[in-house]
Amino acid sequence: MKFKTQMEAAKAGYITEAMKIVAEKEKVSCEYLLEKIAAGEIVIPRNKNHNSISPEGIGTGLRTKINVNLGISKDCNDLDMEMEKVQMALDMGAESIMDLSNYGKTYEFRKRLIDKSTAMIGTVPMYDAVGFLDKGLTFIKAEEFLDVVRNHAENGVDFVTIHAGINRANAEIFLRNERTNRIVSRGGSLLFGWMMKNDQENPFYEYYDKLLEICREYDVTLSLGDSMRPGGINDATDASQIAELITLGELTKRAWEKDVQVMIEGPGHVPIGDIEANVRLEKSLCHKAPFYVLGPLVTDVAPGYDHITSAIGGAIAASHGADFLCYVTPAEHLRLPDVDDVREGIIASKIAAHAGDINKLKDARLWDLEMSKRRQALDWKGMFEIALDKEKPKRYRDASIPEEEDTCTMCGSMCSARTMNQILDEINTEKQYESNTR
Amino acid sequence: MKFKTQMEAAKAGYITEAMKIVAEKEKVSCEYLLEKIAAGEIVIPRNKNHNSISPEGIGTGLRTKINVNLGISKDCNDLDMEMEKVQMALDMGAESIMDLSNYGKTYEFRKRLIDKSTAMIGTVPMYDAVGFLDKGLTFIKAEEFLDVVRNHAENGVDFVTIHAGINRANAEIFLRNERTNRIVSRGGSLLFGWMMKNDQENPFYEYYDKLLEICREYDVTLSLGDSMRPGGINDATDASQIAELITLGELTKRAWEKDVQVMIEGPGHVPIGDIEANVRLEKSLCHKAPFYVLGPLVTDVAPGYDHITSAIGGAIAASHGADFLCYVTPAEHLRLPDVDDVREGIIASKIAAHAGDINKLKDARLWDLEMSKRRQALDWKGMFEIALDKEKPKRYRDASIPEEEDTCTMCGSMCSARTMNQILDEINTEKQYESNTR
Repeated sequence: MKFKTQMEAAKAGYITEAMKIVAEKEKVSCEYLLEKIAAGEIVIPRNKNHNSISPEGIGTGLRTKINVNLGISKDCNDLDMEMEKVQMALDMGAESIMDLSNYGKTYEFRKRLIDKSTAMIGTVPMYDAVGFLDKGLTFIKAEEFLDVVRNHAENGVDFVTIHAGINRANAEIFLRNERTNRIVSRGGSLLFGWMMKNDQENPFYEYYDKLLEICREYDVTLSLGDSMRPGGINDATDASQIAELITLGELTKRAWEKDVQVMIEGPGHVPIGDIEANVRLEKSLCHKAPFYVLGPLVTDVAPGYDHITSAIGGAIAASHGADFLCYVTPAEHLRLPDVDDVREGIIASKIAAHAGDINKLKDARLWDLEMSKRRQALDWKGMFEIALDKEKPKRYRDASIPEEEDTCTMCGSMCSARTMNQILDEINTEKQYESNTR
Repeated sequence: MKFKTQMEAAKAGYITEAMKIVAEKEKVSCEYLLEKIAAGEIVIPRNKNHNSISPEGIGTGLRTKINVNLGISKDCNDLDMEMEKVQMALDMGAESIMDLSNYGKTYEFRKRLIDKSTAMIGTVPMYDAVGFLDKGLTFIKAEEFLDVVRNHAENGVDFVTIHAGINRANAEIFLRNERTNRIVSRGGSLLFGWMMKNDQENPFYEYYDKLLEICREYDVTLSLGDSMRPGGINDATDASQIAELITLGELTKRAWEKDVQVMIEGPGHVPIGDIEANVRLEKSLCHKAPFYVLGPLVTDVAPGYDHITSAIGGAIAASHGADFLCYVTPAEHLRLPDVDDVREGIIASKIAAHAGDINKLKDARLWDLEMSKRRQALDWKGMFEIALDKEKPKRYRDASIPEEEDTCTMCGSMCSARTMNQILDEINTEKQYESNTR
């Protein structure tokens, strides 16, 4: 069958190569994928021009995926360093990389990235608009924004963040409902500025059908951005955020009519007590489209440790049904992350994804079971082999060798695993002896 | 009034100096404390011989507190390094320090610690039994274990972990119900071994009334240990764990009859979906006694990062009502923590405690609100002043100075906070102009 998008194929009951690969990876049936992709509950972001990709599915019943943000900017403009981060992200099993480049040779970096990356690639065309069109933001004409999207689509980008939900009506709601952190989405704030300065409708909202044509042509998945996500926990779940989410739900249906795959982006900064409601709201208002959360950070007071504040929120969100986590690094709110920050961010995000999966996928905890068995057996080599990070635990143990080799310096001779193994062995030996001599 | 324990005073309606200090710190009334301490829902661990202490309350309606584990052992026997960790814990605002020393000059370190520490001090006398009594574990007589507790009480220890719940009956339940990680509590596994080798009842269970007399004499708070806490997420909420919790609930009531304050220790390793149930079970079976959780770690697969796996679990537990979090460091399961590990552990635990408090205490989020305001105002100095860790964010920013001073290198000229402040200023100026010229 000739098909434009995975969704079109699924609706026609046609199993694509990408679906076969995803079914194999996730240990689900192709029939399951067909049903869920047709319904919009699962997406496989895979641009027809991204040849190096190893496709991944995102959505109901699949493992929670993670995204790594990278890219060059005016203040950090070193292509090789960014490619080093790319390699690390791939090595550590990130399923997605977003190229947020917004300065200089964005095309060159994007090209290298797409040529190399087995992970899916996302971009925010809005960030690249000024550079690509080579004119000041307010002078860009509405339809010109689509030229940037088309260029990224041709390049092979698998999904694009589009802030189509912050239309005039929602901007008015925002202006009537004061919040502490106004619009913290970069793309959203730029579009809000453009709309206000030019007194026009949001170009992505106004020309949404044209946008869908581009996405359909290359099978670019739409990641509908949440311009009005809360930027502080006291702004969470407010009128602006939910009004935009309602609009994103409407836009989702329109995309599905054209067989364009859709994800919905979500907060942000959310107190623990609001996270489940945020997931439920997205699933309801956006018709079960996959939910891609940017955190959520559960407190605002810990700059330098937002990989932890977001691991807490991400794990809870994933456990309630969020499908895709955007990593957050220790550098969040402070600077562009360096290579170490990227590493810390990936690990924290993968912990959150897996902790959430334990709650929603039947077999996710088998990994933990295997680790627990090796831990009880004091099989140190075996533990390191299956650890999320294989290097750090080994380094830690090597730095502090215990007197008694099978233990560690935490408990030494009081090692409870060893004590229990010895006692239960003795009890079992006695029982064996009693039953043999009875 | 002459009183033996805070609980005795509270039952008599007498407001102690410690209560006044706690009321002031927590911004609650002394009457509230009286009621909750009398009911056992709040404890103020404060040995009458610990003179340097600045008392803290733990329990319903109060901020979630954190504990830092330290201590000398055979493999790491450097008193000065441990005192360095103590200083750091105090500087970083840990409310409690547990001295888990189990080798060599435990008395000397304990004495230095108690003389210095404004934080409450806890110990596990069982760890010190072999050293204090100077004989092999199996040769210790039942009542001799109480001598160790009495010694710690005299020294000024504010709370002691006592594994009185793993009695013969519960040990039988454990033997009938196989689990992957058998008994991971050090004290619990030693007691289990002692009981099996000597074919006797748990000495702390058998001589519980004598134990209570010691605790009452010095107002030592009992922290009833959970010997059978799960050591892997697949063992969570099993028969052994819950059977012991029932016994801890019975022991709680007996302690309260003697005016002895009680906390209940909890897991351990627990999948996200079980955490709320674990808190509810403790509050129900143990009559709302404060819950002191050791984690919980929400996955077993991330050695090297268990400060993060436990921050996730601790935040969720605290949000549902856990009152006291034992910190976990990146070194957990691998080695004794060094100074940096202790620091990472404290920060992660404080994040978890505060994230939980946001969900259960009305005013906890005012801190976040203040941070959000300073963030919107791009007041970098102001952000660092009130950050949980004041040093790391500043170091991060200083390492990567943006071209435009008010932004950071993450977004540079696309800084959404700056963009929004500019646009809304313009809108407000226009409105002002219109209203002035109308």
